[in-house]
Amino acid sequence: MGKFIIIGERIHCISPVIKKAMAERDPEPIIKRAQEQLAAGATYLDVNIGPQEKGGEELMQWAVQTIQGACDNVPLCLDTSNKRAIEAGIAVYNRTKGKPIVNSADAGDRIENIDLAAANDAIVLALCSKEGISADNDERMGYCQELLERGMGLGMDPEDLWFDPLFLVIKGMQDKQLEVLDFIRQLSDMGLNSTGGLSNCSNMMPKELRPIMDGVVMAMAMYAGLTSAIANPCDRRLMEAVRSADVIKGNTLYADSYLDL
Amino acid sequence: MGKFIIIGERIHCISPVIKKAMAERDPEPIIKRAQEQLAAGATYLDVNIGPQEKGGEELMQWAVQTIQGACDNVPLCLDTSNKRAIEAGIAVYNRTKGKPIVNSADAGDRIENIDLAAANDAIVLALCSKEGISADNDERMGYCQELLERGMGLGMDPEDLWFDPLFLVIKGMQDKQLEVLDFIRQLSDMGLNSTGGLSNCSNMMPKELRPIMDGVVMAMAMYAGLTSAIANPCDRRLMEAVRSADVIKGNTLYADSYLDL
Repeated sequence: MGKFIIIGERIHCISPVIKKAMAERDPEPIIKRAQEQLAAGATYLDVNIGPQEKGGEELMQWAVQTIQGACDNVPLCLDTSNKRAIEAGIAVYNRTKGKPIVNSADAGDRIENIDLAAANDAIVLALCSKEGISADNDERMGYCQELLERGMGLGMDPEDLWFDPLFLVIKGMQDKQLEVLDFIRQLSDMGLNSTGGLSNCSNMMPKELRPIMDGVVMAMAMYAGLTSAIANPCDRRLMEAVRSADVIKGNTLYADSYLDL
Repeated sequence: MGKFIIIGERIHCISPVIKKAMAERDPEPIIKRAQEQLAAGATYLDVNIGPQEKGGEELMQWAVQTIQGACDNVPLCLDTSNKRAIEAGIAVYNRTKGKPIVNSADAGDRIENIDLAAANDAIVLALCSKEGISADNDERMGYCQELLERGMGLGMDPEDLWFDPLFLVIKGMQDKQLEVLDFIRQLSDMGLNSTGGLSNCSNMMPKELRPIMDGVVMAMAMYAGLTSAIANPCDRRLMEAVRSADVIKGNTLYADSYLDL
């Protein structure tokens, strides 16, 4: 098993600083946030430019080249609903440190992002949902198989589909938490990779409690078999959970300095 | 499912303060430590008087009556290799808040503590080991079944055997960590209760790292199905893991104040 993969989530146009930097093509704030996340332990960086129906292609290319140029060709996760922007980003993407990730496909309107990933030898985040939240794990597994078959039919390696169960918010869907973890276990038993926006669990919880809950969900999900997450690597407590669970799972060798490696 | 059960470990004759208080029959330090652990979230309290071949019966009776008298008949876990002392303790034990726990039986020299628990309608901590550390989960399961059959043959309810896989130290046995967790999962799948000295995992690690690792192991073990642990409830970070995992498992209802409940 390899180390758990954090896809750093902090280059996101929802942040006013990043939105402004993207609009002005100002590389500094974006590079700074990339470097912070890498220093904190991210492996991949998500680059969310928003829907960007106009100008998305050029913006994504600029972002990919800016970040990879400044950060030793760090592998990236291209995050937008604009398919042309993803393709444009891949066209200038340097694969030295890892394939690009397409964020994301689902079993509904976004299923063609599987085709996009297959055509471009990319990894794809594959949400196990179609319209809204799946009712149960049978429904999730149905979508998983649909997405897997589509990808494999197009020649993809199953390892390049990273399945996302959709983590659900505790406040409102507390009774669904074990179900999601058990779905991750099913994916793991099938030898499949998995991912997700794990901190969605603690959404709407008091701010000071979120890192505590996120760390615990991370430990539980990693024991269930989760192989990556879209998360904030600058959350120290979350990363302590990731690194400790990597030791328990034998993904990394224990050393007294393991939290800083 | 019920809430996770913490058996508070801090009334232990290895502590100089407790050893002196036990020798002098001074109730204050013992009651103080009992109250601290209950305030921090312990359900049961372990009372470890050491081997105490001489005078153990009278000491255990004094300890049981002192602690239960001061703490509203808190349920206790009677911890000594002196069987007569355990029996003497049970003779004066008040069951209002829960059965006494016998600590502990194994499949070797201490197997008769199963009989003792059965004869006294007590719970028993049942170590899945015989001589030293079990080689693998097949060996652990063999001992589990031997202990279970012995207890049930004597009329015990299977729920009253709490099986201990023996948590192993990461520094030296890192490659055994997942095996132990998977054994807990097997116990859980069988509907059996489980327990253990979880902080043994972080033994010999730097002091500041132990609560971090213990919290992560706790979260993973609770997802695996662990139902109780002998632990220090005054370790705030460990209890944050327990309470958060209880929310995820649906053992408690979420509230914004859940860490303080």
